[in-house]
Amino acid sequence: MTDDTSHTEKMKALQEEQRKKTDAASVPDRGLVLVHTGNGKGKSSSAFGVIARALGWGQKVGVVQFIKGKWITGERQFFSKFPDQLDWHTMGEGFTWDTQDKARDIAAAEAAFARAKDMMASGKYDLVVLDEINIAMRYDYLTVDAVLDGLKARSGQTSVILTGRDAKPALCDYADLVSEMVEIKHPFKAGLKAKRGVDF
Amino acid sequence: MTDDTSHTEKMKALQEEQRKKTDAASVPDRGLVLVHTGNGKGKSSSAFGVIARALGWGQKVGVVQFIKGKWITGERQFFSKFPDQLDWHTMGEGFTWDTQDKARDIAAAEAAFARAKDMMASGKYDLVVLDEINIAMRYDYLTVDAVLDGLKARSGQTSVILTGRDAKPALCDYADLVSEMVEIKHPFKAGLKAKRGVDF
Repeated sequence: MTDDTSHTEKMKALQEEQRKKTDAASVPDRGLVLVHTGNGKGKSSSAFGVIARALGWGQKVGVVQFIKGKWITGERQFFSKFPDQLDWHTMGEGFTWDTQDKARDIAAAEAAFARAKDMMASGKYDLVVLDEINIAMRYDYLTVDAVLDGLKARSGQTSVILTGRDAKPALCDYADLVSEMVEIKHPFKAGLKAKRGVDF
Repeated sequence: MTDDTSHTEKMKALQEEQRKKTDAASVPDRGLVLVHTGNGKGKSSSAFGVIARALGWGQKVGVVQFIKGKWITGERQFFSKFPDQLDWHTMGEGFTWDTQDKARDIAAAEAAFARAKDMMASGKYDLVVLDEINIAMRYDYLTVDAVLDGLKARSGQTSVILTGRDAKPALCDYADLVSEMVEIKHPFKAGLKAKRGVDF
């Protein structure tokens, strides 16, 4: 009897422990905010990998690119094959980061973020990717407060990934996940050129 | 005359400098070896992002997954839509990392790597992704020497991405690029469960 009681108690304790774990892992299913930052490679490409994942589950995805708008990239060509599941928006034509017209660049960044905000608030998207938006904040084309306001106003089911180096501390504080990509070795430094299909 | 000579000389120096830069950026176009390691998120998903890129350029891609073989993942569902461009191979059914039969697991890892080696040497692929292979090396299911031999025997035009935490130093020495994904904040630690479309 004592053995049985002891066993039962042990099992109960185990069950309790298990229940706590399960509870901890069952916090309401809401959209996450993920930041990919750091000086290494993989910030945007891992966001594109997550897009592939989301599309694989039949989810709806929105992308706003705050830079690289004029590049022909492999990801752009590839993902344009899925217009039903994916809305892809790049910043206005005139925006190159090479322009000397800061007011115009700020207007372009703000217009792109207005689009992003609509996407995030609409409830239509499982995932919204704001590619290189950290760069727009870094150069004061967007304020971190404006971006935080947009994130806070998003639909509860929408996850958002924000990429780009030099992510603002206030954004990292707000995010559920911050991943830093650290450059250990880089082929460009070894004299290799950017490679089609790998780097863009 | 003196001014003209001086200008010409300056232009020549500038041209020379430019030529050197261009040369440095034009090292023979060969396949790169990239390692994604670290304890943070984004190692596999950035490889999947690069796959999307490569597919966008009409390139041919091979994937060998050394783990997660039994999961239903978004990436697997998504990329299975492109059988003409993408060959996807997961390790033998019996392989779960939970088995206690180490000899069987080693045999499964070796069989998967044999497949990877064929892919890399065939010259048919622009990109080969060896997903979570670093874990196989970490647990001595594969030796780093065997993996290096396979990489060295690859077709010159084939880029290879090797993912997984705890990448072996000898592999990092050989690689053209090593990116470390560092976990700054992680949602699981905050009690959130893995999210379909984001985490798998």
